[in-house]
Amino acid sequence: MTSEGTAFKTRGSKAEVEEGLDFAPKFDANGLIPAIATDHESGNLLMVAYMNAESLAQTIAIGEAVYFSRSRNELWHKGATSGHTQVVRELRVDCDQDAIWLRVEQKGGACCHTGRKSCFYRSIPVGNGGDPATIALQFQDADKVFDPEQVYGKK
Amino acid sequence: MTSEGTAFKTRGSKAEVEEGLDFAPKFDANGLIPAIATDHESGNLLMVAYMNAESLAQTIAIGEAVYFSRSRNELWHKGATSGHTQVVRELRVDCDQDAIWLRVEQKGGACCHTGRKSCFYRSIPVGNGGDPATIALQFQDADKVFDPEQVYGKK
Repeated sequence: MTSEGTAFKTRGSKAEVEEGLDFAPKFDANGLIPAIATDHESGNLLMVAYMNAESLAQTIAIGEAVYFSRSRNELWHKGATSGHTQVVRELRVDCDQDAIWLRVEQKGGACCHTGRKSCFYRSIPVGNGGDPATIALQFQDADKVFDPEQVYGKK
Repeated sequence: MTSEGTAFKTRGSKAEVEEGLDFAPKFDANGLIPAIATDHESGNLLMVAYMNAESLAQTIAIGEAVYFSRSRNELWHKGATSGHTQVVRELRVDCDQDAIWLRVEQKGGACCHTGRKSCFYRSIPVGNGGDPATIALQFQDADKVFDPEQVYGKK
């Protein structure tokens, strides 16, 4: 995909960005925008990742989630090799157009590299007012759908 | 709150971060972590914001969402003046502990400063493969719950 294919509209005034129909996403200093994937049926948060202009354009073009991997510094068509793609059922942008919401159908049933449905499989106890250094997480809905060693190989 | 009150645990190995019970959140170069709020009943994504260590510690302590406003460069106890607070029903952290998920009860029914339930009131058409510069957003569930001028004053 050429750079011409990833040129989004230039951002207008605050009112145009918030109430207009032009899609003019704001990328941060690193050229990235946060992308939040939820399950299209349950509404559960699956993962938080990032997109650059090219991955966002590809996501829109093919209807599957394409992120930008900050650790590998490359485009990341999620599930392209494992088959565990995310089919985009709906894509939305927020008021100031600096975040993307993907409502997805997660193929294979698991989004997280640990083999779990969602990356958010531990809760933080709230309202106890204690010392932050003593917080003990609690596992929630943390059953593994797949064995990471079988899918990704032994590390 | 003193800085002592916001000291989270030091991060351990990858396995400890991903499979352990220690809460050791990772803040970025600006000292921030993304915080994603969804409606605890519908699962709809309400907003994407950021927390620093102090706002995260306060959120955990009081059970209401306290963010860090990047534009105002200050703690932001959402709804503290308008009464439109976000009561935290559940708080979760992701596998590598660099994102926070808040399942909230949004008081007043609207999360967005535009007066809408969610900040994500426009969808991006997917799968057309067209030129990104020609994308036309579509309003979705975009009725205003309140008049921003009444709540925040005329701008």
